[in-house]
Amino acid sequence: MHQLFHFKGGTTGQWRVVSMSAPRGEGLVPVAHIEVNRADHGPQPEGVTWRLQGQISNVRYATRTEITSMRARPAPLARAQSRFAALIPIKKSAAWWDLAQDERRAIFEEQSHHTEIGLGYMPTIARQLYHSRDLGEPFDFLTWFEYAPEHADQFEDLVAKLRATTEWRYVEREVDIRLERLD
Amino acid sequence: MHQLFHFKGGTTGQWRVVSMSAPRGEGLVPVAHIEVNRADHGPQPEGVTWRLQGQISNVRYATRTEITSMRARPAPLARAQSRFAALIPIKKSAAWWDLAQDERRAIFEEQSHHTEIGLGYMPTIARQLYHSRDLGEPFDFLTWFEYAPEHADQFEDLVAKLRATTEWRYVEREVDIRLERLD
Repeated sequence: MHQLFHFKGGTTGQWRVVSMSAPRGEGLVPVAHIEVNRADHGPQPEGVTWRLQGQISNVRYATRTEITSMRARPAPLARAQSRFAALIPIKKSAAWWDLAQDERRAIFEEQSHHTEIGLGYMPTIARQLYHSRDLGEPFDFLTWFEYAPEHADQFEDLVAKLRATTEWRYVEREVDIRLERLD
Repeated sequence: MHQLFHFKGGTTGQWRVVSMSAPRGEGLVPVAHIEVNRADHGPQPEGVTWRLQGQISNVRYATRTEITSMRARPAPLARAQSRFAALIPIKKSAAWWDLAQDERRAIFEEQSHHTEIGLGYMPTIARQLYHSRDLGEPFDFLTWFEYAPEHADQFEDLVAKLRATTEWRYVEREVDIRLERLD
């Protein structure tokens, strides 16, 4: 099943851009709105400044035990109360991609507790990972989060914890776009 | 680094098709030649019947110990004596992709000895894996092998061993194309 999504930054879109920053490396051209939808090969809408694409794929590191824990705390996208979102595209270094699977897993979870940290914020914060690296995109991942305005502090906590991990030393480009749903 | 390759089946190409079969699932339309090259976005050559694409990516299962063993037996592509090749596109089932990382690793190596089997034929048989699944392609992987004509029996051995593994129970489509280099 092909689950390719487009994130189009421009003058229109269901998500209004509240802020854009570039914690590491080069930023993206500022835009006012982002439209997220399944990939289509039809004509592009007007006013698109940039387009990122990513694919929902299989898990790369999660063990069965971790998947079971995550499924016990379902945090679906598109909940009515989730009026805030964050799109955080990330590119990791060549050093990361040259690591073996066991080395990446060790940094990801045993040292950085990535899944464990995320679990601590479920179901309050919904997230979806889109894989971009094998599509030849400028970023390796498009990380996406949705939450209610009253949980904005918790989201800041989550992001701060992830950025403080050993894993994040391998992040060489990161853009942080905060969004508010229009409807 | 974007390393996308195209495999074009048609009336021309540097590899002559010796045989085509479909061990599992639907086959591909028979062609006389296959051309393999880096992806280009220019005009398509004439006489292309089908095109598959795949991306060289990071390892998904190999541990550092296994990578060290593989690097000790380098088996590069495009050696002068490697006049024979095989293109074996593979699609695994949804059940495979729904497994957690530790479950896939266990089936791949601890039960099926995939890397260990391949190592036993290095450097005689050169191989390259191209990832297709996240590109929305009909196959998940394009597996590619090159070897000298006098090692054809060893290649049959290798393929038979892999097809007999637990891992292969998750293969739902497999096409087997044998090739000879024209030059």
